[in-house]
Amino acid sequence: MKIGIIGATGAVGRQMLECIEERKISAEEIRLFASERSAGKTIPYKDGVLTIQTVKEGCFDGLDYVLGAVSNALSKQYRPLIKAAGAVYIDNSSAFRLEDDVPLVVPEINGEDALKHNGIIANPNCSTIITYMALAGIHKLSPLRKVTATTFQAVSGAGIPGLNELTEEIRAIEKGEEVSPSVFPAQIAYNCIAEIGSYTENGYTTEEMKMQNEGRKILHDPSLQVTCTCVRVPVYRSHSISVVFETEDLLAQEDILQALKEQEGVVLCEDHVPTPLETSNQDLVYVGRIRKDLTSEKGFALWCCGDQIRKGAASNAVDIMEYLEKQNNMI
Amino acid sequence: MKIGIIGATGAVGRQMLECIEERKISAEEIRLFASERSAGKTIPYKDGVLTIQTVKEGCFDGLDYVLGAVSNALSKQYRPLIKAAGAVYIDNSSAFRLEDDVPLVVPEINGEDALKHNGIIANPNCSTIITYMALAGIHKLSPLRKVTATTFQAVSGAGIPGLNELTEEIRAIEKGEEVSPSVFPAQIAYNCIAEIGSYTENGYTTEEMKMQNEGRKILHDPSLQVTCTCVRVPVYRSHSISVVFETEDLLAQEDILQALKEQEGVVLCEDHVPTPLETSNQDLVYVGRIRKDLTSEKGFALWCCGDQIRKGAASNAVDIMEYLEKQNNMI
Repeated sequence: MKIGIIGATGAVGRQMLECIEERKISAEEIRLFASERSAGKTIPYKDGVLTIQTVKEGCFDGLDYVLGAVSNALSKQYRPLIKAAGAVYIDNSSAFRLEDDVPLVVPEINGEDALKHNGIIANPNCSTIITYMALAGIHKLSPLRKVTATTFQAVSGAGIPGLNELTEEIRAIEKGEEVSPSVFPAQIAYNCIAEIGSYTENGYTTEEMKMQNEGRKILHDPSLQVTCTCVRVPVYRSHSISVVFETEDLLAQEDILQALKEQEGVVLCEDHVPTPLETSNQDLVYVGRIRKDLTSEKGFALWCCGDQIRKGAASNAVDIMEYLEKQNNMI
Repeated sequence: MKIGIIGATGAVGRQMLECIEERKISAEEIRLFASERSAGKTIPYKDGVLTIQTVKEGCFDGLDYVLGAVSNALSKQYRPLIKAAGAVYIDNSSAFRLEDDVPLVVPEINGEDALKHNGIIANPNCSTIITYMALAGIHKLSPLRKVTATTFQAVSGAGIPGLNELTEEIRAIEKGEEVSPSVFPAQIAYNCIAEIGSYTENGYTTEEMKMQNEGRKILHDPSLQVTCTCVRVPVYRSHSISVVFETEDLLAQEDILQALKEQEGVVLCEDHVPTPLETSNQDLVYVGRIRKDLTSEKGFALWCCGDQIRKGAASNAVDIMEYLEKQNNMI
């Protein structure tokens, strides 16, 4: 298996490589791509290093998979090159997620969609992956009708610059110095910012609408109604989501707990409340605080946390690649 | 006017005194009470200082008002003494909030309830005050039927020890030292903890149930349904709440905006998203992100922030006292 990673020096790109190493995926070759600025630099891998290259004509030739952790603009620019090379592109950007012939995949939920790809498979939004990992097993018991979600999103959702901005602000405040935010629209240290993404016509942000639009596609349910509020919080890694949901049928709380226990990739916390700190640097989604919604007969509330650089991005992309490989080898 | 403050050395008690000074309330006498440990210490007030005393038989004699910022247990212990002294007790604890003959008051919402007191008036829970300040004007247009709320609660909700724990943890982490939480159930620095209060039978915490039970009493609407998730975040002051609500009638967004503009004590933010940092150290509740709920025809979503030590506690208690004084002087 020959794998390329574009955006290899970013938070998600680095994590993709770590994930490949951690899982001992036997790759015959790994090519790392990043901007001109990083070209020639090396990144440790196993006992040696890999050298960063820039994207140019023919650079993807011979690769089986390209994992993408670049902006929408770059993803659009690179897609034809990857297609021409005949590699399968697993893209973490949101550029193609809602295109009809592009599967949007969380392997534990709708892995089989990945098999219908046409050269490109999209990785869903980070909060979306974590939320539906928590809801997918319940959705199988009875279809979700309504979801109300409020997210607590870590600064690393804005990549390494987001991580650095929080650290620098905390240090500046400690020294009594002025804080001048550049990554986030306001100071994020000791603050919460209910504004992630740009505004759409209905007053929701692009980030908030992903929870509905991508959720519908992952669950194959175009009638699913979702209202979401996305909030940035001063946490380094792992997003948390407060979710209230309603299913078509009246479910028993025990059935919901059982569905969560059986859901691959999910840890049901019955003895404590999961926190973003606890779920950082690992691949599982932790779910707790399951209780009846007090405003709807068929509703329940829960709280879930997961590392959005891992399961919310890098690990999910690698999961998709492994899912395809497994299917290919079975055929 | 002669005023006593019990719990005068805590975060809320100190703020009560500051609020009295700031508003230039002409008090003939102010008596500060705290524990044995603080007795004899002084607190600056105007050009001089006030000396802390302990609570003992007769200590409230001659006072018109006692503002309380003590635990439920102490509040229960002191209530008979305050009653015996004939002072009006404005209590920030939750000990008496739901008792039938104790008004639960936010002056801008249900000030007239304060007039029916029987010696004691309760100050609602902090998140509850801020949330219903944002919703009260809308409730007047059409009664609220359902409220789904997720709170982002500052560490000062746990008083000065909460403030100190966040600072100490941030410093320990910077030095690479171990963190050992004692105020909160887990590390709060760079973390979110969806567990405030103790658990009730239905799986909600006492803090979460206040949003429904106290909301019903403040709005005089026992049928109001509320589902709440309370989350502690690493913010020093000001709670924020992500709210989705449904009214009995279908309201127009412009009418909701108008109601918010007209609501005393509320700032409608149309040009930016309010943050807890921005709303710290002042008395108004800021409301933004008003948009249609995508899951309910008669629903809307909003985001509100307010300083929970001030309007969420101390200032609201002083507001109640001023409301009563104004009414007394008008009679």
